[in-house]
Amino acid sequence: MDLTGENLVGDEPVKGEGATFRAVNPATGAELEPPFREADGPTVDRALRGTQAVFPAFAATPPEVRAGFLRGIAEEIEALGQDLLDRAHAETALPPARLESERARTVSQLRLFASLLDEGSWVEARIDPGDPARAPVPRPDIRRMLVPLGPVAVFAASNFPFAFSVAGGDTAAALAAGCPVVCKAHPAHPGTSELAARAVGRAARGARLEPHIFSLVHGWSHEPGLALARHPLTRAVAFTGSRKGGRALLDEAAARPVPIPVYAEMGSVNPVFLLPAALAERCDAIAEGLAQSITLGVGQYCTNPGVVVGVRGEGLDRLRRGLAERLGAMAPGAMLHARLGEAYAAGLERARGRGALVLTVPATPPTAARAGAALLGTYAARFTSDAEWQEEIFGPASLVVEARNVAELTRVAESLEGQLTASIHGTPEELATHAALVDVLRRKAGRLIFNGYPTGVEVGHAMQHGGPYPATTDPRSTSVGTASIARFLRPVCYQDFPDPALPAALRNRNVLGIWRRVNGELTKDDVRPAA
Amino acid sequence: MDLTGENLVGDEPVKGEGATFRAVNPATGAELEPPFREADGPTVDRALRGTQAVFPAFAATPPEVRAGFLRGIAEEIEALGQDLLDRAHAETALPPARLESERARTVSQLRLFASLLDEGSWVEARIDPGDPARAPVPRPDIRRMLVPLGPVAVFAASNFPFAFSVAGGDTAAALAAGCPVVCKAHPAHPGTSELAARAVGRAARGARLEPHIFSLVHGWSHEPGLALARHPLTRAVAFTGSRKGGRALLDEAAARPVPIPVYAEMGSVNPVFLLPAALAERCDAIAEGLAQSITLGVGQYCTNPGVVVGVRGEGLDRLRRGLAERLGAMAPGAMLHARLGEAYAAGLERARGRGALVLTVPATPPTAARAGAALLGTYAARFTSDAEWQEEIFGPASLVVEARNVAELTRVAESLEGQLTASIHGTPEELATHAALVDVLRRKAGRLIFNGYPTGVEVGHAMQHGGPYPATTDPRSTSVGTASIARFLRPVCYQDFPDPALPAALRNRNVLGIWRRVNGELTKDDVRPAA
Repeated sequence: MDLTGENLVGDEPVKGEGATFRAVNPATGAELEPPFREADGPTVDRALRGTQAVFPAFAATPPEVRAGFLRGIAEEIEALGQDLLDRAHAETALPPARLESERARTVSQLRLFASLLDEGSWVEARIDPGDPARAPVPRPDIRRMLVPLGPVAVFAASNFPFAFSVAGGDTAAALAAGCPVVCKAHPAHPGTSELAARAVGRAARGARLEPHIFSLVHGWSHEPGLALARHPLTRAVAFTGSRKGGRALLDEAAARPVPIPVYAEMGSVNPVFLLPAALAERCDAIAEGLAQSITLGVGQYCTNPGVVVGVRGEGLDRLRRGLAERLGAMAPGAMLHARLGEAYAAGLERARGRGALVLTVPATPPTAARAGAALLGTYAARFTSDAEWQEEIFGPASLVVEARNVAELTRVAESLEGQLTASIHGTPEELATHAALVDVLRRKAGRLIFNGYPTGVEVGHAMQHGGPYPATTDPRSTSVGTASIARFLRPVCYQDFPDPALPAALRNRNVLGIWRRVNGELTKDDVRPAA
Repeated sequence: MDLTGENLVGDEPVKGEGATFRAVNPATGAELEPPFREADGPTVDRALRGTQAVFPAFAATPPEVRAGFLRGIAEEIEALGQDLLDRAHAETALPPARLESERARTVSQLRLFASLLDEGSWVEARIDPGDPARAPVPRPDIRRMLVPLGPVAVFAASNFPFAFSVAGGDTAAALAAGCPVVCKAHPAHPGTSELAARAVGRAARGARLEPHIFSLVHGWSHEPGLALARHPLTRAVAFTGSRKGGRALLDEAAARPVPIPVYAEMGSVNPVFLLPAALAERCDAIAEGLAQSITLGVGQYCTNPGVVVGVRGEGLDRLRRGLAERLGAMAPGAMLHARLGEAYAAGLERARGRGALVLTVPATPPTAARAGAALLGTYAARFTSDAEWQEEIFGPASLVVEARNVAELTRVAESLEGQLTASIHGTPEELATHAALVDVLRRKAGRLIFNGYPTGVEVGHAMQHGGPYPATTDPRSTSVGTASIARFLRPVCYQDFPDPALPAALRNRNVLGIWRRVNGELTKDDVRPAA
């Protein structure tokens, strides 16, 4: 496992004149070799110019070539074996079992996008055949499909060193779409990033693709990322991280002479609503489920349940006690990097400053190396009176909000800003009775969960991982699942083109065997043009 | 035909304290009765607050109710008969035949959206059934569909008083999606707008819908429009108009605490590329087709062909002469309002200032009442050296760009900013030989046209009316055709919900008979959940 610490422009290591930084083992505080080189302006520019030169050819590759490429990335990542897991463990302190399952998820989502390309209907072909006989003017022949948007800047997340990083979901979706990627590695795991980027490079060579369809740049400061978002050749930004970071990229992109879309997934407090009959029936099981969800990955998930809302009474009392006991008994874990430990401690302090009741706090003040779980409490009337209560405390903490009745609980739902998820625990009867609550939450969140917990985002066709601002900058998009490819596509239509000059997806003969909307009807049939 | 001149909040006329203005007959300069009242801040606020109160119920209306509502709007507009045409003619000077065909297009697109709702698959249902037996953890049941985004601010265009105005495509798409609309009337045709708005109101009553799903506000200054884009309850903006206006709304929306999407269609120069064999074969026919397209509606179309690019030689010489003759022989027409006449004259002056060759100019300097056609010329090397040459001159004018060869013509294509359309005239053999040109233009434009002219936008399922910035602010969207509904939708997924608690589109039994993607496969079958 040889790491160079350099940026990779295409497959070429580029030093540039950026500052150097080192990864740190968050469990021990030890600095790791080698030093990494932050990308300077010329390096970012070279990476984007490289994508420009190869974009037309990459956009035109047959989907099966890109499918083979994605499968190749998956194989190359698996071939890194223990080296990759060891480096990721050293850089993130995430437990080996978690890293193995995250790697499995990463390669399976690469293969899922390959199968999406095999199936082919993702281009959403629409054909309105011409009608020369129409009066008063002939109807033109119009055929529409999705084409790649252009080079995408992918910002890797700290909390998923594989699945939301260099070869993660954003990269897989962009490459599947036919968009070159310039990925900004997360500075907390630069070595893991370099290994993954080299795997992508080897897979590109294996698929005989131009190396410049993928570059990796490092950045410890904000500047390389802002330069990526600002670069005139960048056509979209995908980001997973903090609200501050996502908004900064959004503002940068909006101020460009040619604005571009920013898909920033910025996390949320993922409220969990507990209805009375559910608490009466399953109080201990819910306490156990919440405790596991709150502390999973030391609370460092975008879908961490940061707010739990229940109706006052015995059930809620018991839930609070049971949850506080469980959280208090859990061993502290190491967070992903030093700044997260400080931010977690500060977040707990701010919550206490605004008068949160302390149900349990870590025995020793949290640090990155030892972050214990916390449970705070407040009342619905206070929660709804000040949006500060909705602050996400990134770490293994949650806030229990006590409502006087279901009407007040629904007002808590009404007061929420945009969320990735919202969960309801109830009996089926309660769910039917409180349809208004579901209705409110549907306006607030991208994913509604019944009798479950928000952590654990299934990668499939139907997943929606996104939600109204500030959960994301674009509630129309998902960053998980096959639908996420739509972020990097735009429609183009062809009017009155001769059949041989059309892309394969739009020709009369359905040579690809894909679903197409012909005169508005989905079909796999060939199109019969008017004589 | 009684016009009140007041804003309509729901179905209630609201005066407010805004300034008054009058419509002007652009052909005569005469002011028209009655005075109209610009919406003040409290009026805009009332309109949005009204939508908030009714949005949940409107979002939940069965699609057939909204389909009936859209058909009702079409009927009410037809029922306005000659009164509507007369008022529109007085306010726009558009010829009666054009207004009749635009009205026909408007009611047919309302009915097209109704049929889209009838068909039902626009919700893009995706179902990944759960699998309790999956190891190591059960697979949750995930079901996803599109839901309405929220209240939409629609900005009516000056150049389509029916089809892109109060009851035009944006309004039809938003209402079809289940989004309430606050429409800002274009100040050039406020009376036409009031008539259409009252038709919408009557249709809403007929469908037993809350009046507050639709409001009309007037604005002569920019302030009411900016207030709409700024209002915290607005969830999306749809606009057709100038680049300056669209960008102002985009910037306003981007600066909000909660940013929202802006779909601004800002027009473009819609380049037409003439390949040599086509010119050799069909020079006169192309000159005639271009002359008609350039002067259609006195050149006031977003798709007006403002740039024509050809390869030097006899064919191009003859085309230039033929086109100049035809344009010179055309009678001047009245433009839509006084400011457009001034802007057209100024645009021609600026082009001459940068050295455009004059092939023909109107005998008398253009005014709003009498705007004659113009043809200018330049060379490819000059065109590509300064982006100023790409300025859209809104009116019946075009610029012929002479390239030395097809390679230089392709460089002109490469130099272009984003376009709504790009057209190529050539033989099928030329199209095959110059596939690189098609490739370049596909990156620049939303619609590619072969041997045709850009004016005339077919309303159907496959139309893409949009393109890269600055043609629009969002190249992922279309503002014409059924796909335009996607602008006002966002996905939501339900995890592990009991079947009866799911929306009809997502239940096991496919009660709506719609296409759904089950485990990634399109089907109309019912879903069999795991036991």
